[in-house]
Amino acid sequence: MKKKNVYLENKPLDEAKALWNQTLIDCGFSRQKHTETVAVDDALNRTVANPVFAVRSSPSYNASAMDGIAVHFLDLSSASEATPIQLKDGQFLQVNTGNAIPEQYNAVVMIEDVHLMENGWAELTAPATPWQHIRTIGEDIVATELIIPQGHKIRPIDQGAMLAAGVVTVEVLRPPKITVIPTGSELIQPTDKPEPGQIIEFNTRILGGYLQEWGADVSRCLPVKDDPDKLKRTLLKAAEENDLVIMNAGASAGTKDFTSTVLSEIGTLVVHGVAIKPGKPVMLGLIGNTPVIGLPGYPISALLTMRLFVREMIHSFLGIAPPKPDYIDATMSRPVHSSMGVDQMVRVTLGKVGDNLMVTPSGKGAGAVMSYVRADGILTLPTGSEGVGAGEAVQVELLRPPEDIDATLVCIGSHDNSLDLIANHLHTRAKIIHISSAHVGSMGGIMAIRRGEAHFGGCHLLDEETGEYNVSFIKRYLKDTPLQLVNLCYREQGLMVAKGNPKNISSFEDIRDNKLLFINRQSGAGTRLLTDKVLKEQNIDPDSISGYEREEYTHMNVAIAVAKGSVDAGMGIRAAASALDLDFVPIAEERYDLIIPEEFIADPKIAAMLDLVSNDMEFKNNVLALGGYNLRDCGKILYRQ
Amino acid sequence: MKKKNVYLENKPLDEAKALWNQTLIDCGFSRQKHTETVAVDDALNRTVANPVFAVRSSPSYNASAMDGIAVHFLDLSSASEATPIQLKDGQFLQVNTGNAIPEQYNAVVMIEDVHLMENGWAELTAPATPWQHIRTIGEDIVATELIIPQGHKIRPIDQGAMLAAGVVTVEVLRPPKITVIPTGSELIQPTDKPEPGQIIEFNTRILGGYLQEWGADVSRCLPVKDDPDKLKRTLLKAAEENDLVIMNAGASAGTKDFTSTVLSEIGTLVVHGVAIKPGKPVMLGLIGNTPVIGLPGYPISALLTMRLFVREMIHSFLGIAPPKPDYIDATMSRPVHSSMGVDQMVRVTLGKVGDNLMVTPSGKGAGAVMSYVRADGILTLPTGSEGVGAGEAVQVELLRPPEDIDATLVCIGSHDNSLDLIANHLHTRAKIIHISSAHVGSMGGIMAIRRGEAHFGGCHLLDEETGEYNVSFIKRYLKDTPLQLVNLCYREQGLMVAKGNPKNISSFEDIRDNKLLFINRQSGAGTRLLTDKVLKEQNIDPDSISGYEREEYTHMNVAIAVAKGSVDAGMGIRAAASALDLDFVPIAEERYDLIIPEEFIADPKIAAMLDLVSNDMEFKNNVLALGGYNLRDCGKILYRQ
Repeated sequence: MKKKNVYLENKPLDEAKALWNQTLIDCGFSRQKHTETVAVDDALNRTVANPVFAVRSSPSYNASAMDGIAVHFLDLSSASEATPIQLKDGQFLQVNTGNAIPEQYNAVVMIEDVHLMENGWAELTAPATPWQHIRTIGEDIVATELIIPQGHKIRPIDQGAMLAAGVVTVEVLRPPKITVIPTGSELIQPTDKPEPGQIIEFNTRILGGYLQEWGADVSRCLPVKDDPDKLKRTLLKAAEENDLVIMNAGASAGTKDFTSTVLSEIGTLVVHGVAIKPGKPVMLGLIGNTPVIGLPGYPISALLTMRLFVREMIHSFLGIAPPKPDYIDATMSRPVHSSMGVDQMVRVTLGKVGDNLMVTPSGKGAGAVMSYVRADGILTLPTGSEGVGAGEAVQVELLRPPEDIDATLVCIGSHDNSLDLIANHLHTRAKIIHISSAHVGSMGGIMAIRRGEAHFGGCHLLDEETGEYNVSFIKRYLKDTPLQLVNLCYREQGLMVAKGNPKNISSFEDIRDNKLLFINRQSGAGTRLLTDKVLKEQNIDPDSISGYEREEYTHMNVAIAVAKGSVDAGMGIRAAASALDLDFVPIAEERYDLIIPEEFIADPKIAAMLDLVSNDMEFKNNVLALGGYNLRDCGKILYRQ
Repeated sequence: MKKKNVYLENKPLDEAKALWNQTLIDCGFSRQKHTETVAVDDALNRTVANPVFAVRSSPSYNASAMDGIAVHFLDLSSASEATPIQLKDGQFLQVNTGNAIPEQYNAVVMIEDVHLMENGWAELTAPATPWQHIRTIGEDIVATELIIPQGHKIRPIDQGAMLAAGVVTVEVLRPPKITVIPTGSELIQPTDKPEPGQIIEFNTRILGGYLQEWGADVSRCLPVKDDPDKLKRTLLKAAEENDLVIMNAGASAGTKDFTSTVLSEIGTLVVHGVAIKPGKPVMLGLIGNTPVIGLPGYPISALLTMRLFVREMIHSFLGIAPPKPDYIDATMSRPVHSSMGVDQMVRVTLGKVGDNLMVTPSGKGAGAVMSYVRADGILTLPTGSEGVGAGEAVQVELLRPPEDIDATLVCIGSHDNSLDLIANHLHTRAKIIHISSAHVGSMGGIMAIRRGEAHFGGCHLLDEETGEYNVSFIKRYLKDTPLQLVNLCYREQGLMVAKGNPKNISSFEDIRDNKLLFINRQSGAGTRLLTDKVLKEQNIDPDSISGYEREEYTHMNVAIAVAKGSVDAGMGIRAAASALDLDFVPIAEERYDLIIPEEFIADPKIAAMLDLVSNDMEFKNNVLALGGYNLRDCGKILYRQ
């Protein structure tokens, strides 16, 4: 087994950028102004490269502005009600709107003011002023005048103005042609069913979509298998046909990641390895004069790295100033530690709770697509920073419009699938309301509410002493917070067992009696509290359940253990069983409530949510359709302080 | 000659809308939710019709998050620098990022921390924690969880999340299919050269572009000639194939406008004639269950009427709330009179001059495309209003983003083509700076500056007494305003004569001596003052010039008279001659200055303009290339007070 490559460099971001920008100038990518001439008909939303001047005047002839008759105004100078004037054929001409006015006439009288006589003459009872109701040549546009300034983005009305002015083609900025090449034998198409070790190729969809949004002309390639010759041929062709080539994956140091070697052979590797997180293994190079970028394989690493390098490249290719990213001032809800020596990009959610705009990291897995779906912004911790503390002021680059942030309900606590339905129904009712939810467990939610970071939280904490849910915990940890405890649902907890329930499990007794293998949740988890209560009620000694001492930390990990066949049963909610297509044996019902501080009850967003859960039958039917729910108290206030 | 139709109705807007909305519900247009299923790959920017739930978990297997080796964490529990542990083949497996972890392993050690020995064993010097560097099933997405709420507009990251979750098609809102049919035998294509009476068909480009922007799926038809049978066939086919049919033109009462008759024959005319201005002759009807709208022929009437009726129809078809139009509070700079009994839509420009956001009508011709190109907003004067007075507070619907309005320099006064170049160069330098210019003549500009409505104005007023430009007028009309008078250019005025100068005119003497026909400008015009000064200097008796008493009000009207051959010469600037392809005989030079109140000199936008005219050689070369300019004092302060 030969020794692995390690990254050649760990170049500081500033240095890497400076080197790369110089490379882009040298190779012509950023040096020239790239333009193309297109038909005005096809120019909607394109940016004008040079000022557009009128070729023709509009109107291009003197035109009637009304339906009526064309006259010479002097012929009517003495006309009045008392002394009408009759014009004979030749002294007037019937015209419709838009008709050309012959030279002998210089005014139009509206048809409503004309009495057309039996003999074909016209009788008029008022004088006319010169050029009345006539659109004279150039009234709208004078040939040679500036129609559209350079740098203007063409709107439909601008297309109309150009065509009216005789301009039928227009020179516009040409967007860079960029192709995205996914590499890796493990990649399959979204319509294929993945086997373990296979990965659905969706990265190029994400990358391509944002490139398009930033103004590029994008194509996506089919995945290239791990074969250096194939990759060489693909890269050479792509470099010839595009202004920029983006490779995805093949940028880390794994055995099959030979892209840096290939790139060095057929081109130049300018930078390999930048001190950023995520995105460290990025490659920046050239094939001929075409820039080539190798992005890391994880979707979020790839996307964040592409934002960092490629977004501004598109603008420098077009020769325009990049749009300023939207930044917003906010306060950290919890500390984020940073690795010294790297520029770190952190996905965050934002929520305005009371007067504070709070920032919370939304997840950090490089592969965690949903953490970016849910993110409201990106927080950058520059190299040299050790991180930021709770309560510290930071600036966040927004991924959503600021008005969306204002309209966000912040939910921190335990997760339940019915929360997804609340989010969906609220979004449908009032498009603007959006729920940002962090799933940190019931106790995590209570703590977030205590710190003023959440509008509400989901909670299902059973007090084993009293058998009651939530209230005793609130009294202990939120005693100074006036609040309402509103029930959302009762939900089934039960035993997750293999598909078809081959071991015929219907209770904990079956597990004990048939010596089946169980898997438990960690102490302190709501589900563990419930398990212990059930065992106690049924007089089952925990020691008689094999595997009781083996703990997992999430519903899903318990479900996975059952799905893999390494255990026979585990406690969890029905949704986790459904997710992995397991069978589910209901064992107990638990109460799931929402804790809402009194100060937010009148907030229109909370009011909308409470109205929804109390009164919306469609919402309730959708929850019931999930299975395993009882809504007998849904929307009821069960406790207040 | 038969009696004309007049409009059947003049229905108040509210009534027309209520009737039309009911019709749209009855025919199914607004009643149903219109959706379609598309591939996720094609769903970028589409709106999700129903919530999207994950079909598969992601990762769909336990995957290595690193390049390294998979181990069982218990095997390393005693590993340390002092007591390294050696694993033999089978106790570990080499894995790359993304590889599946076989069931017997439960942790991954990064390759950097592994010593791979000659004999194929691996030596490790630190323990591992369970599941370290492993992405477990469902870590990112759990099957059944909500990925995208209903009503969400799909971003690239959402496409990635759906594909990762095994969702390959998505139900999205289906935009209405709308076709736009231009009618009229006078319509020609933009690439054709118009003869008098012919009109370039650009309306459907404008209308189609905005329909597309509002979310419709638009097609444009070729113009239909004035032939009832042809129109019938076209309409019937269009109604069958579309959700909405829009006819353009054929809505006024001219002889060839038979569309209302045709529509009544093959369908129902629900409303014909609404009390709005512009747009009164609008037709609203049905063919079968397909709504049909007849818009007036003038581009701006058609566009404003379409905004009024069709924009919200698109949203009601989609079943979504229309985006709120942006309104801004502003102050009228001058009165606008309104016709009682109609809802009137006025195009306006906006400019922040000092602390005041001033509203100025930008032009009112129904055919004036440029007035809409230049407009910043639409002011609606409701029926019952007699208009608004100067200084009155109004609300304006914005056509540009508010930040564009803040970055607008307001220029009111005399026009010169070099102002277009200033606008263009400023827009190129700092994309955000935009010049809103109203061409109301030099004296109009002085008055606007006095009222605090303009940042600057162009001025070329000759004092016949002193022979000096502008200063005496400033002393008289702006005596209380500290200001700077900055020269922009000297420009040629001269005689506009027919192409090729067939009468060989080189001076006013030639006109007098050869008894040629002249056309004059109105008294008080800058050009008239100049003409009189020249005649006086050359001792030419005005009475000896035939046509001296015939006055026109604009450069262009003088040029038109020359172009038509009805006169032999007229005074004007070179640009007017060029516009109509006339010859130009230079006669005199006049000074063209910019009046800039002292309070705006430090405004960065004015500073940028002054820097441009003083220092930018490219700008100066562009002005000189127009012909007829001298820039010897360009940017010099000629007077200040």
